[in-house]
Amino acid sequence: MARILTLTLNPALDLTVRLAHLELGAVNRSEAVLTQAAGKGLNVAQVLADLGHRLTVAGFLGADNPAPFEALFQRRGFTDAFIRVPGETRSNIKLAERSGRISDLNGPGPEVDAAAQDRLLDGLASLAAGQDLAVVAGSLPRGVDPLWLGELLQRLKRLGLRVAFDSSGAALRQGLAAAPWLVKPNAEELAEACGLSATDEQALDDQARRLQAQGIEQLVLSQGAAGVRWFAPSQCWQSTPPRVEVASTVGAGDSLLAAMVHGLLSDWPAARVLRHATAVAALAVSQFDVGIGDPQRLAQLESQVAVRPLD
Amino acid sequence: MARILTLTLNPALDLTVRLAHLELGAVNRSEAVLTQAAGKGLNVAQVLADLGHRLTVAGFLGADNPAPFEALFQRRGFTDAFIRVPGETRSNIKLAERSGRISDLNGPGPEVDAAAQDRLLDGLASLAAGQDLAVVAGSLPRGVDPLWLGELLQRLKRLGLRVAFDSSGAALRQGLAAAPWLVKPNAEELAEACGLSATDEQALDDQARRLQAQGIEQLVLSQGAAGVRWFAPSQCWQSTPPRVEVASTVGAGDSLLAAMVHGLLSDWPAARVLRHATAVAALAVSQFDVGIGDPQRLAQLESQVAVRPLD
Repeated sequence: MARILTLTLNPALDLTVRLAHLELGAVNRSEAVLTQAAGKGLNVAQVLADLGHRLTVAGFLGADNPAPFEALFQRRGFTDAFIRVPGETRSNIKLAERSGRISDLNGPGPEVDAAAQDRLLDGLASLAAGQDLAVVAGSLPRGVDPLWLGELLQRLKRLGLRVAFDSSGAALRQGLAAAPWLVKPNAEELAEACGLSATDEQALDDQARRLQAQGIEQLVLSQGAAGVRWFAPSQCWQSTPPRVEVASTVGAGDSLLAAMVHGLLSDWPAARVLRHATAVAALAVSQFDVGIGDPQRLAQLESQVAVRPLD
Repeated sequence: MARILTLTLNPALDLTVRLAHLELGAVNRSEAVLTQAAGKGLNVAQVLADLGHRLTVAGFLGADNPAPFEALFQRRGFTDAFIRVPGETRSNIKLAERSGRISDLNGPGPEVDAAAQDRLLDGLASLAAGQDLAVVAGSLPRGVDPLWLGELLQRLKRLGLRVAFDSSGAALRQGLAAAPWLVKPNAEELAEACGLSATDEQALDDQARRLQAQGIEQLVLSQGAAGVRWFAPSQCWQSTPPRVEVASTVGAGDSLLAAMVHGLLSDWPAARVLRHATAVAALAVSQFDVGIGDPQRLAQLESQVAVRPLD
C-alpha cells in the first residue's frame, strides 16, 4: 500500500439524465438521473483506492456545491486537501435519449484566481510530505494558465515525488515539457499536442521515444479498443484487450493510469503490469461506475488480455 | 420563536442551467449552473427560519445523493429527521436558453416502499413532541398513495398539532378531506381538486366556505399577481401586492404559506398577517433565492400591499 496524492484542478459533477425523448420548450419527465462527483484525478483516486492505496485528494473545488464531493471523500476515506474557491464546481450534464442521441451540457466551472493558485503551490511541500507519488490529471479551470501547470509539475518533481500526468491540449503540451515520470495521453491527444496525425503510428512512436529521451520515463499511450502501447525505459510493449460490451468509455483512461501506477509501484514484471492495467481499463469500459467493483470479473478479463513486447 | 416541523415527502434537487442555445446531439457549453436543494416543505422551512423559528425537517430523502440536502440543513441549523430511502432524490433540471425558451427535465425520484412509509408514521409521535405546528407541503413520491397522506394528516392532528398543508391534485383532495388547520392552494389547484373552473370566483368562494364548514380553519387562496384571498374564521380578506419584476415564481406560494403561519403564530391582527405574508410572497417572486435575504426590501414591499376585508 502506497500513499498517493491526486491533484484534480478542474473537478466536475457528472449528471447523466435518461429520458424517452426531449422536447425543447416543454416540461419533460426524465426516467433516471445519476449524479457522480468526478474529474480525472478523482476517478484515478477511486481506482487507486480500490487497488489498496491511501489517497489524499487536492485541487480546486467550488465552495457553493462541495457536498457531493465531500460525501465521496468520506465514503472513500480520502484525505480532503482541496482548496475551496468561490462559485460552483462545474456540472457536466449528459442528456441520453432512447434514440441513442446524446446531448452534452458542459458547465463553465469557477474562475480560479491567482491567490488560490498561489495557495496551492505554497501548500505543496506539506501536501507532498510522506506521499509516495503524485497524480495530476484533467483539464485546467478558467483562470489557470498552462505555464502554471508546468510550474506545479516541476515543484512536485523537486519535492522528490514521482509524478504521473494526464491532460490534453495546451495543458498536455506544457506538462510534457516538464518531463513527469509517467504520462498517459491517448493517441489523439498526443498527436494534437505535438502537431502529428493520430493515424500515423510511426510518427507517434518516434514522438514517444523523443519524449523518453527528454526525461519522461514511462509513456503510456491508450488506443481505445486497439489496446495500450507502453514505452517503458528499456522496452516497448503492446497490449490488446478482450472485446467487451461498452457501457461507458468515461473514466477508462483514468482507470488505465491508476492501474499502471499501481503495477509500477508494486514492482511487478512489465508484462503483468500492462496486462492488469489493460484489464482494469476494459472493466471500466464495461461498467457505468468508476472503480473496481467486481474483482472476479477483473480476473476473467485479465486472463483474456494479450501482451507482447515490440521489437 | 416557535418550533415547527415541516414534512417534505418528495424533495427535489433543482438545477438551473443557463446556456446561449441548446443544440441536441452535440456538446454544448453552459454559461452557469445553479444547484438548490428544494421541495415545497424545505422552501417553507427556509422562510420560517428567516422569520426566526426553529425547524425540524422530515420526509423521504434518497440515500444516494443526500449531500446537498445535508449541507442545507447544516447551513440552516435544521434538525434532520428525514428517512433515507434507496435511490436518488429526484433532480429537476431547468434548461434556460437566451431566447427565453425553457425546457424542464423533471426526474422520477425514488420509489418509497411501505416499510419506509410505516417508519415515518411510527416515528411521528416522537417527531411531533415539543413542536408547535407542522407543515406538510408538496407532491407525493412514487409508491405513496394519497390515502396514506390523509392518514398522516389525521395522525398529526391527533397528536395535537396544528397542520398547515399545501399540495395539488389527488393529494390535495385527500388532504382537504382530513381538514387540516390551514390549507394554501392556488386558485387553479383548488379548482382542479374540486372539479370547478378556476375563473369562476363565486364557485371558488363557495367551495372555500364549504371547506371551512368542514373544519378547515384557515383557507389561503393564492391568485398570483392578483393577490391573496384569505378565508379566516370570521372574516374574508383580500390582498393586492405591488407590481414587482418577476425573477422566478418558484417558491412564491411556499413563502406565502410560511409567512401566513408566522403571522398567525405571532397573533398579529389579521390585516397585518396578510399584508406581511403578501409582501414575503412578492419578495420571493422578485428574487431567485428562497428566503428573506433583504428585510429592508421586504418592509418597502409591505408598505405597498393593499389589504381589504371582503363583505
